Amino acid sequence: MSSRRPASIPSSGPGATSTRERIIGAAINLFNQNGVPSVPMHKLAAELGMSPGNLAYHFKSKRDVVAAIFPLLEDQMRGVLKPPGIRVSPRSAAEYQIEIFRTLWRFRFFFNGLVGLLGADPTGLAKRYMRFQDWVISTLDDLLVGLVGHGDMRTIAAPNTTHLVATNMWMLWLSWLRFAQLVSPDMAMVEDAAIYDGALRHFSLMQPYYGREFAGRLLVELQRALGQENKGSAAARDLPSARVKL
Amino acid sequence: MSSRRPASIPSSGPGATSTRERIIGAAINLFNQNGVPSVPMHKLAAELGMSPGNLAYHFKSKRDVVAAIFPLLEDQMRGVLKPPGIRVSPRSAAEYQIEIFRTLWRFRFFFNGLVGLLGADPTGLAKRYMRFQDWVISTLDDLLVGLVGHGDMRTIAAPNTTHLVATNMWMLWLSWLRFAQLVSPDMAMVEDAAIYDGALRHFSLMQPYYGREFAGRLLVELQRALGQENKGSAAARDLPSARVKL
Repeated sequence: MSSRRPASIPSSGPGATSTRERIIGAAINLFNQNGVPSVPMHKLAAELGMSPGNLAYHFKSKRDVVAAIFPLLEDQMRGVLKPPGIRVSPRSAAEYQIEIFRTLWRFRFFFNGLVGLLGADPTGLAKRYMRFQDWVISTLDDLLVGLVGHGDMRTIAAPNTTHLVATNMWMLWLSWLRFAQLVSPDMAMVEDAAIYDGALRHFSLMQPYYGREFAGRLLVELQRALGQENKGSAAARDLPSARVKL
Repeated sequence: MSSRRPASIPSSGPGATSTRERIIGAAINLFNQNGVPSVPMHKLAAELGMSPGNLAYHFKSKRDVVAAIFPLLEDQMRGVLKPPGIRVSPRSAAEYQIEIFRTLWRFRFFFNGLVGLLGADPTGLAKRYMRFQDWVISTLDDLLVGLVGHGDMRTIAAPNTTHLVATNMWMLWLSWLRFAQLVSPDMAMVEDAAIYDGALRHFSLMQPYYGREFAGRLLVELQRALGQENKGSAAARDLPSARVKL
């Protein structure tokens, strides 16, 4: 997919690559902690122990940094959204979901800042994002069609459609990220608790289409992987019956 | 509920009230069209044909304007979320939902700007918002419990809970508003098409809990009220089977 990201191709040798990568890594961390509007370029430079002029040599503006991060986000999301390709077990479904939620979490500043980042944008990021989002939703749609076709999920009865459910999945995931930021503005929420929250929101959306046994076992696998049997994430407090019944 | 909103109580006679109301009305419109960050106070003053000094006499800062709008939003949401109190018909359910979506749409700038509006906030708005959100979700939870209890909705099977579904409803509604802004950054989307979009997203979430006949008739009522039988909202394009089957 290198044709999609000319901005992230290093223009010279390995030294340049490494500096670029270091800048991008620090930017992702700072953006996630503080939100993009609260991270001026000089703060990013200071974090890197770099002069503002040196940083400007690599990235002229914050918008350029964000534009260089987007292809990483896109590649990683394309990677984790690829369907497992085997028959679904509660464990493989839990692992698949957790990888998706970890990736969304890794780039949460981007999704939480969408409206600001895509507005009045000269870099074409808005169009690239909308194409990416369409791809995500149609991939999820295909996944649902496949699961129903293999008997791994109940049919989504008309007039509802797999496409509407796929869109709701995506909307809910992004809402989950935003709620985590609202509840914990410095985004200090422990990652596994946040991931478990997202997984439970998703579980609640999709449970009507799961078999009863599959639903129960999926929840056990999510709890096992994320260590949330006894800890109280916000969503876990909403789920007393799960703790009693499983 | 006047004790909740000292900021919106006029400090002098009817003339003062009317100026405050005029400012608030113009601010809601401008904020919805452009987003709060793109509406400086002098632009609001210009829109009102008012000097910046005169505007400052009523509201010292944009934050004060937003703080004065919030109680209106809260009152109107509390009004429309009050359960109808009679047995649910497809028509009453459609009317109830549409009123909620119209109210969310009327204050969309607020929900779309939440992260920015609630951050670093000296007016206590963040706390008031979180209390409001908790109230909305618990009201929706009560509503679901009532609907299931009266046999108007299918049971939400454990380990899912009415509280998780109620939270997902709220998350989905806010995501719908945000998607509308992303797709149409100047928020120029025709109101009824946007409302229909939101109603279909909600329909897709809740359909597993509706009876088959109720689901079909609810959709007909939504289409009748919003005039979307033949027009193509984004969500309507996702719903070909509905157009064929109904």
